[in-house]
Amino acid sequence: MNQDIEKIYKLSELYDNGESSQETVEELKRLLIPYKDGSIGLAQINPKAGDIEYNASKVVKYITHAQNIGLDLVVFPELVLMGYPIEDTIDRHPIIVEENVKWLKEIAKITTSTTAIVGFVEPRRYNQLTGKKYYNSVAVLSEGSIKGIVRKSLLPTYSEFNDYRYIEPSPVVGSQPGETLGNFDADKAVDGSKINLINSKTYGISICEDCWNNKEFFNDTTLYSLDPIDELAKENPNVFINCSASPTRAKKEQLKHNMLSFISKKYSTPIVYVNQVGAIDNSSFDGSSRVFDKDGKLLARAKSFTEQFLIVNPHKGLGKVYPLTKGLEQTLTEAKVYTLEYEPDLERTYKTIIQGIRDYFNKTGFKRAVLGLSGGLDSTVCAVLLADAIGADNVFGVSMPSKITSQESKSDAAELAENLGINFTEASIKDMVETTNNSLQKLFKTVESKWNCRYKESFTQDNIQARSRAMFLWGISNEFASCLPIATSDKSELYMGYATINGDMSGGFAPIADVPKTKLFALARWLNNNRHVKDAIPEAVILKKPGAELAIDPKTGKPLIAEDALMPYEFLDEIIWRIENKKEHYYDMLESEFLYEKKDTISRKQKIQWLDKFYRRMSTALYKWSILPPSVIVDSRSINKYDYKQPITSSGINYKDSSLEEIKAKILTFIK
Amino acid sequence: MNQDIEKIYKLSELYDNGESSQETVEELKRLLIPYKDGSIGLAQINPKAGDIEYNASKVVKYITHAQNIGLDLVVFPELVLMGYPIEDTIDRHPIIVEENVKWLKEIAKITTSTTAIVGFVEPRRYNQLTGKKYYNSVAVLSEGSIKGIVRKSLLPTYSEFNDYRYIEPSPVVGSQPGETLGNFDADKAVDGSKINLINSKTYGISICEDCWNNKEFFNDTTLYSLDPIDELAKENPNVFINCSASPTRAKKEQLKHNMLSFISKKYSTPIVYVNQVGAIDNSSFDGSSRVFDKDGKLLARAKSFTEQFLIVNPHKGLGKVYPLTKGLEQTLTEAKVYTLEYEPDLERTYKTIIQGIRDYFNKTGFKRAVLGLSGGLDSTVCAVLLADAIGADNVFGVSMPSKITSQESKSDAAELAENLGINFTEASIKDMVETTNNSLQKLFKTVESKWNCRYKESFTQDNIQARSRAMFLWGISNEFASCLPIATSDKSELYMGYATINGDMSGGFAPIADVPKTKLFALARWLNNNRHVKDAIPEAVILKKPGAELAIDPKTGKPLIAEDALMPYEFLDEIIWRIENKKEHYYDMLESEFLYEKKDTISRKQKIQWLDKFYRRMSTALYKWSILPPSVIVDSRSINKYDYKQPITSSGINYKDSSLEEIKAKILTFIK
Repeated sequence: MNQDIEKIYKLSELYDNGESSQETVEELKRLLIPYKDGSIGLAQINPKAGDIEYNASKVVKYITHAQNIGLDLVVFPELVLMGYPIEDTIDRHPIIVEENVKWLKEIAKITTSTTAIVGFVEPRRYNQLTGKKYYNSVAVLSEGSIKGIVRKSLLPTYSEFNDYRYIEPSPVVGSQPGETLGNFDADKAVDGSKINLINSKTYGISICEDCWNNKEFFNDTTLYSLDPIDELAKENPNVFINCSASPTRAKKEQLKHNMLSFISKKYSTPIVYVNQVGAIDNSSFDGSSRVFDKDGKLLARAKSFTEQFLIVNPHKGLGKVYPLTKGLEQTLTEAKVYTLEYEPDLERTYKTIIQGIRDYFNKTGFKRAVLGLSGGLDSTVCAVLLADAIGADNVFGVSMPSKITSQESKSDAAELAENLGINFTEASIKDMVETTNNSLQKLFKTVESKWNCRYKESFTQDNIQARSRAMFLWGISNEFASCLPIATSDKSELYMGYATINGDMSGGFAPIADVPKTKLFALARWLNNNRHVKDAIPEAVILKKPGAELAIDPKTGKPLIAEDALMPYEFLDEIIWRIENKKEHYYDMLESEFLYEKKDTISRKQKIQWLDKFYRRMSTALYKWSILPPSVIVDSRSINKYDYKQPITSSGINYKDSSLEEIKAKILTFIK
Repeated sequence: MNQDIEKIYKLSELYDNGESSQETVEELKRLLIPYKDGSIGLAQINPKAGDIEYNASKVVKYITHAQNIGLDLVVFPELVLMGYPIEDTIDRHPIIVEENVKWLKEIAKITTSTTAIVGFVEPRRYNQLTGKKYYNSVAVLSEGSIKGIVRKSLLPTYSEFNDYRYIEPSPVVGSQPGETLGNFDADKAVDGSKINLINSKTYGISICEDCWNNKEFFNDTTLYSLDPIDELAKENPNVFINCSASPTRAKKEQLKHNMLSFISKKYSTPIVYVNQVGAIDNSSFDGSSRVFDKDGKLLARAKSFTEQFLIVNPHKGLGKVYPLTKGLEQTLTEAKVYTLEYEPDLERTYKTIIQGIRDYFNKTGFKRAVLGLSGGLDSTVCAVLLADAIGADNVFGVSMPSKITSQESKSDAAELAENLGINFTEASIKDMVETTNNSLQKLFKTVESKWNCRYKESFTQDNIQARSRAMFLWGISNEFASCLPIATSDKSELYMGYATINGDMSGGFAPIADVPKTKLFALARWLNNNRHVKDAIPEAVILKKPGAELAIDPKTGKPLIAEDALMPYEFLDEIIWRIENKKEHYYDMLESEFLYEKKDTISRKQKIQWLDKFYRRMSTALYKWSILPPSVIVDSRSINKYDYKQPITSSGINYKDSSLEEIKAKILTFIK
């Protein structure tokens, strides 16, 4: 029997890789006969947002395959016909919702005894409508028609999720008759069974967030009062099905794994969780669809970051657990503390970004990338990621030295390009900077004659260099087909606003905008150890102190080091981590011991100075966050504008605690 | 008596203008004695997001004033201590919520027999919490303590509103005891009266969206099933109070006026509506707080776009109706059809943008603006708006001619600057463009040797010019204190992606990003007729056909006209209007008669060509929308990223209808 199972997955992988033939499919079907009763195909798909024809082509392909191998059931991710998230698009362009219903109805017609569960946007058709215009639904299709509709009840509206902007929460859990499509009214909900009988088994179907609300698991601290899974459990289904579109983020695997295991064990019911894969804009979905058996044990898990059709039978122990990214399994029991031990999360980080870049390029029709190679860490890591995401041939690195650029920087850039096999050239910005300066000096004189507020010291020179480089890169992007310039800013520096507008933070995509500097160092080492070509990144790049080489430090006569202008990255990254993960404030941090302080004692005065600088700089960096190009969300929390919103005009916030005495005294001054 | 009323408002205006003395306040108090019973002050405030001390200083000031003149009640806008919207800030920085509670409690202590209704973010303090962490609440303060708390039930989560991201909807309408602050639990809600007795009168208090859900007014098509006003009405309060933060948008005054009038008439109960004024980032709040009497008649209305303390007594007919912006009153009964008669909305448009610019500058600490003056319509109108918003002295216009720039363009720019009294200079970009081109030609040759995909025709030359100009403007911004460069893109061109990244669409703020071109022409004429200095905009600017003067049209040998590259603006703007206001799709529009077609018959082929071009260009403009600087939302609907969200990777959307036959045929091809 075990050999048969092995064979089943081998043949299935042939199919996934497009290497199957009629014979291999026939053999797969034959091997599956003993597992047929209760068999399920998890169709882990990478859809395009709003491209219904493209998404439907995949749905039809997998339904046909499931039929060919005789499965009972094939399950697709949440909103598979539309892609998730589709955001406000369905509100402004309702035609695409009409389209997805037409496709759904036609797809229903091709179904046979193999049932298909297909996600779609369901319009609510009433002249007199209470609530939003749509449901987030899945349809249960078989024997040529729509047998049932399940509607999402819990609507995530936080971080990258905006479900409640356009979706009405379903007050009714579980399945309603197929003929309610478009005309479901909670008041007239059919009060019969909420679970679906498919061949010999019953299924309790839910959608994504619907299964993230177990009161016991979350210690009675949940976002919603209704627990759809608990409702479904009352009817004792043989299996729970959850159709999801859940992007990967740091620490999320830990939560998801433990929660799904908890649910299946608690209700002694297997759970089948089918997740979307691929990236849509800033969100990278990891797939890793999975099945837990009725004892809460992981029976099967699909691959991460790739499309797959995973066959399981939770009643007969048919399943295969594909590995998560390396190291991630270790994090399942990890506590939430700040650490510089990034290793267990690095392969996930790498794959999250690679997929983010690749799908952004693929789904917008871009093929090539051009980026400035400074010999520094940010552009270096970006170059490696791009080479791996879209192919070395499609990447052009341009070294654009100024008079401040060191010889080492230039040769580090060249060596990196050589190691990666990407295209490379050098183009001096000297002439441009000189001409710009000449023009600007005259202009500044004129402006000064009217405005008596010229800075004694400014970043004008630094920025002219960064902007000249961006001018070159955008020039190449304009002149060559399907080519995007890359913004190389990292998370630590974006927090500090340490990035040039129309300079290094400008581009068509920003690969490492959610990676803090200390993690970037770890990622660089990881890349050197784990890529097919080892040590592509010159050791010197990792060893040198980051600095933009835009200005000379008057104290040392050498290019300015970023940590001198900001603060030690280890300290900075821990502030960021504490705010994002612990919601700490100024005094919380002042009174806590930072990891950095364990190595190096620093004075309280120094710590205050760094904290003050942090908040001051962050307050004025909000504008830069708002114009940052699309980027991949990687961390548990981020400053990506589609994940975190803060008014730019909130720069007057006092992030420190006030005492009651201070407040009282101030009120007295306001009164008079 | 009428003379007394006149005097009351005269004295009140003195106070608003900071010109009152102890004597005038005493006189005001004396005049108000007959109106005391049921008197209300509407404190129409311009808060800063998250700046609690600043906002509290205003709250304390107005409470003290209301006490000084012996009012029964003073009412503030929604969330006045925090400013609306505060967005996710309160989730990441909970310290500011703690702060706003401390301030609220201390403010309560200064209250006397004059009751104050003060909006704040209420934390929900439980170890075991179901739902979001906060309520959007108002506190009823008097005699030194918190007498009651009202919590918002209906949470707008669409367009620019994101309430449900961080706020829990209150299941209970109306007032709960003050001691429930922070510890309100719906299950333990006090079942007594939901309305507040303040001196001799009872008040039914609600917050913003809570009053926008009248089933009868909205023809049974409402966003929520609960109607808080209807619930409150059951207790027959003497007055409804609604604390709001509702930004102005085209056609919204029509809806708001008619709806509030309808409600007060329906329930035979006066309604007091207090709105926030001022801009927070992209949202411009118009104030215009108002009172309708029990017959639905407008009794009082505060000024638009300015802070005011408006005294009313709905029981004794005390009120004054300040005019809306000119022409807006006429739109109250207007039908929703496309028109080029923009006149009735132009003063509102002007003031919305002026306030948007001014508050963005004030609240971020910027003072000066620099912009390129091309002699074209976009930069011209921007210059006028900036001069009026922040003062002519604080504006620097720079004419940056290239070899394509005509003599007329240069002299139009100079004449405009002269008329406006703004600073002006000319700075040629010729050297920069030449040097950039020299550097780029070499670079392009190298790239071409590796990448065989150089365009035969490209926009590289056009963009180098636009980017060189932006380089100058950002240079000035870097070199001079508190100076922002301005992005001059308009709505029509942003829809078409007809704007240069790091060029004209780059800046610290984008004043006209929500104004379509045809409206911009009307606005230019309006400015010439209505500003204190008439005809500041040279007639030639309004008469000439828009074009970026970035390239020569090979057909005419003259600078390319934008309408030739795109389509007639009248046609383009009607497409935009139909999508945004009617949610029409491709074939809807193909089959409708456009205003443009009434003047000029166009062939079906031509119309198809324009529609195709529109959708093609719009699909690839989504990225540009995502990196656009902050801008003021003006229209009913917009492409501002904080108002409308669409994935950039949704470029595969088919905006046309498919027939069932097409879908069936495609499914067949997918199967095989």
